[in-house]
Amino acid sequence: MTHSFSQKAGLLSHHTIKKSVVVVLIACILYPFSSLKAQNQDSLMLRKLYDYYLTKSKCYSNLDYLATKIGGRISGSTQAEQAVQWAKRAMYAAGADTVYLQPCMVPHWVRGQKEKCSISSTKLKTTTGLNCVAMGSSVGTGAKGIKARVIEVSSFEELEKLGENKIKGNIVFYNVSFDQTKIKTGSAYGEAVKYRSRGASHAAKYGAIGSVVRSMTSVADNEAHTGNMTYDTSISKIKITTIAISYKAADLLHQTLLKDKDALLYIETHCQTLPDAPSFNVVGQITGTEKPNEFIITGGHLDSWDNGQGAHDDGSGVVQSIEILNAFKALGIKPKHSIRAVAFMNEENGLAGGEAYARYAQINNEKHLAALETDAGGFTPRAFGIDTLNGLYNKAVKWKNLFAPYLIERIDVGGGGADIGPLEKLGVPGMAYEPDVQRYFDIHHTAADTFDKINKRELELGAAAIGALLYLIDLHY
Amino acid sequence: MTHSFSQKAGLLSHHTIKKSVVVVLIACILYPFSSLKAQNQDSLMLRKLYDYYLTKSKCYSNLDYLATKIGGRISGSTQAEQAVQWAKRAMYAAGADTVYLQPCMVPHWVRGQKEKCSISSTKLKTTTGLNCVAMGSSVGTGAKGIKARVIEVSSFEELEKLGENKIKGNIVFYNVSFDQTKIKTGSAYGEAVKYRSRGASHAAKYGAIGSVVRSMTSVADNEAHTGNMTYDTSISKIKITTIAISYKAADLLHQTLLKDKDALLYIETHCQTLPDAPSFNVVGQITGTEKPNEFIITGGHLDSWDNGQGAHDDGSGVVQSIEILNAFKALGIKPKHSIRAVAFMNEENGLAGGEAYARYAQINNEKHLAALETDAGGFTPRAFGIDTLNGLYNKAVKWKNLFAPYLIERIDVGGGGADIGPLEKLGVPGMAYEPDVQRYFDIHHTAADTFDKINKRELELGAAAIGALLYLIDLHY
Repeated sequence: MTHSFSQKAGLLSHHTIKKSVVVVLIACILYPFSSLKAQNQDSLMLRKLYDYYLTKSKCYSNLDYLATKIGGRISGSTQAEQAVQWAKRAMYAAGADTVYLQPCMVPHWVRGQKEKCSISSTKLKTTTGLNCVAMGSSVGTGAKGIKARVIEVSSFEELEKLGENKIKGNIVFYNVSFDQTKIKTGSAYGEAVKYRSRGASHAAKYGAIGSVVRSMTSVADNEAHTGNMTYDTSISKIKITTIAISYKAADLLHQTLLKDKDALLYIETHCQTLPDAPSFNVVGQITGTEKPNEFIITGGHLDSWDNGQGAHDDGSGVVQSIEILNAFKALGIKPKHSIRAVAFMNEENGLAGGEAYARYAQINNEKHLAALETDAGGFTPRAFGIDTLNGLYNKAVKWKNLFAPYLIERIDVGGGGADIGPLEKLGVPGMAYEPDVQRYFDIHHTAADTFDKINKRELELGAAAIGALLYLIDLHY
Repeated sequence: MTHSFSQKAGLLSHHTIKKSVVVVLIACILYPFSSLKAQNQDSLMLRKLYDYYLTKSKCYSNLDYLATKIGGRISGSTQAEQAVQWAKRAMYAAGADTVYLQPCMVPHWVRGQKEKCSISSTKLKTTTGLNCVAMGSSVGTGAKGIKARVIEVSSFEELEKLGENKIKGNIVFYNVSFDQTKIKTGSAYGEAVKYRSRGASHAAKYGAIGSVVRSMTSVADNEAHTGNMTYDTSISKIKITTIAISYKAADLLHQTLLKDKDALLYIETHCQTLPDAPSFNVVGQITGTEKPNEFIITGGHLDSWDNGQGAHDDGSGVVQSIEILNAFKALGIKPKHSIRAVAFMNEENGLAGGEAYARYAQINNEKHLAALETDAGGFTPRAFGIDTLNGLYNKAVKWKNLFAPYLIERIDVGGGGADIGPLEKLGVPGMAYEPDVQRYFDIHHTAADTFDKINKRELELGAAAIGALLYLIDLHY
């Protein structure tokens, strides 16, 4: 139609306008109005969605329950099982017409008794306790602990240079701070996290009996930050204990070593890895009225570290995802496609849930139009990251002006997340909800990731943004 | 030149290119490069500024001192005087070559003993304390207090309808909540605040003996929010006591009145207004190398409410402003124009400082190129608001891409603030630093506006944004 119009447009005169041209002309005149009308309708519906989320949503009270009544919920724990049952109830209560429990086998690592760490100097006549936390998946020392000299390094390169001669029988201390000049705190985390994840194997390669990292944090406080580690058998087959100490403890250890390089570090951890345990993703669905076997999903992860309440990480993502069910029910929105809120299991130490979800999607031949992950904390909304795949980004970026009144100024190219990673590998365009993460790494994986750190409005605004985006995708696909 | 080029451009041929055209052509070819080079240089300097602010700045430790060592500092108080002396020292320490104390007479209102409020119902056999705070500038009841029935209204219109017949001898309760659907919390505040500022006079007009407002807050907690009020003699000449009760107390009062409309409210406040007191703005200056009598300023207000520590409001703005002196010193930046950090006195209940600053600027014939106010809390940066006056906005909006890497996505038309208002009236373009204010009204004017609510990175990123903007204005004017 456009082509025929452009051919004929040059020939237009008062008496040669043909019927087809008239139709095209009218369409062209009306198009901006109909487009404007659609945008206006979208705009009105977004306002309704936001009104709902900011006055009637249940995500804050849901998170209160999940974080404070259930608490930390590492895969395989009783709390994780309670969280699964809670999510099922919460999704039905939110208006899901179907709730699936998707089985998956998860690693079952347990921390055991609280870790101990102290630095003793005969020269200085001091013994000082250091606030510490064992890494997820790490082996325990048992009650006897380990005690040895400390070799402080600032990189793997430095470790390698020192070699077995200096390292053997000692404990390696990776004293690597966050780069505070990175504006996106996630970049600083990305740089530092390798010492947490692979530090033990690198240290073990040179005969170390334990490894310690400075906590991955933006803030100089006394919180110890846990997180997962991997014994990388391509580096070393020996499994040694590995802990994080708080930022302040790392400073103190560094200062002590400057004064007495023979000071001895004691570490006692009681971690164990039990046989894999059965668990579940929880999937709540509003079945689509027109294309029930086409899916648009939003998810967060239900498991969390055991030392805190998993409020920001990622209770917030779970309740934000569940809230879309509540919102659609409250506003009587009947989606064309099936909308799913997914509470993934085992993001923190295995991704068994994410893999299971993708496997079931494949087995059941479910077509996923788009998958969003919200796993960066329940902070004030800033942006979405959206895959270019299947034209999703190009479509979404046109909605930028719809989100501007809600102070979401950016729609970035590219998005996804750990849990939806396996789904993305199957060709599903991924999306990431991007809140402001300046405060995230203050509390990430610590005992301080608690419900009182959640701001109700910030959480709700994030949930609303996600709800609005999925609403638009459903409507315009 | 452009004109002559466009005339000749159409006539260009291999042999008719004249010298002037060549010059213009070269200029045109080089222009984008020189512009690009300037942008690159700006970009490099912004990176240096941010590196300084995020690793070496003193704004966080300065705020720690101001908020926790000095604390709440209402105009006329000993703490306000201490804050003046501290600001003077801090500005010299930050590298100001000149520090001015600008005298001004400020209102001297004192709260006296902690307020009391309770609701008693004979019918329900209950007496319940309500967390409350007297309004700034309000009169006290003294130790005898007042006790009366409560007339609850949701607007001035409702009050007017009830009239003297229903109101006389009673206490008016303005039960008006924040509109949570407003995305910008400042808009919700703007709507509700009239009941705080003029509620007493409207109630007094109909013979009420006291007035109470629901706290101006985004959060349903038990903090009572103070703030200034005015006895508007154009409405009523009678001065009655007026307090704010917490959100939860307001709910409780409302519920009690539903059950027993004859319940009696007791209010006891001990406020007094003493004679005006001498005080000061504190102005720290780096004198310009080229145009010392042309000024670019950034300011916050040094005074705060007495019930909290004035950490966000507006200790953060004061230390962010002072930090530009530290930054320029640290990086060896010698501004062309004089740069000033201004700690204004008496923003909360009078604006005597803002008026004094403008008066001195006028007397001393100081030309101000631009004035920025930072008084919306030390939260994560979002935007600047900038006046169109003298082409300032048009200039600044071109720097948008320089700020994008620092996650400042918006440069809005129009900006200013209460303290720089009098200066703006003299024709100076105003600018506002706009952080994310979703959490601001949780703690605004409460006992909870304390240093522990400040996030170091968010405060520093804000300070850096302000420093960078003033750097660019100085360089490109």
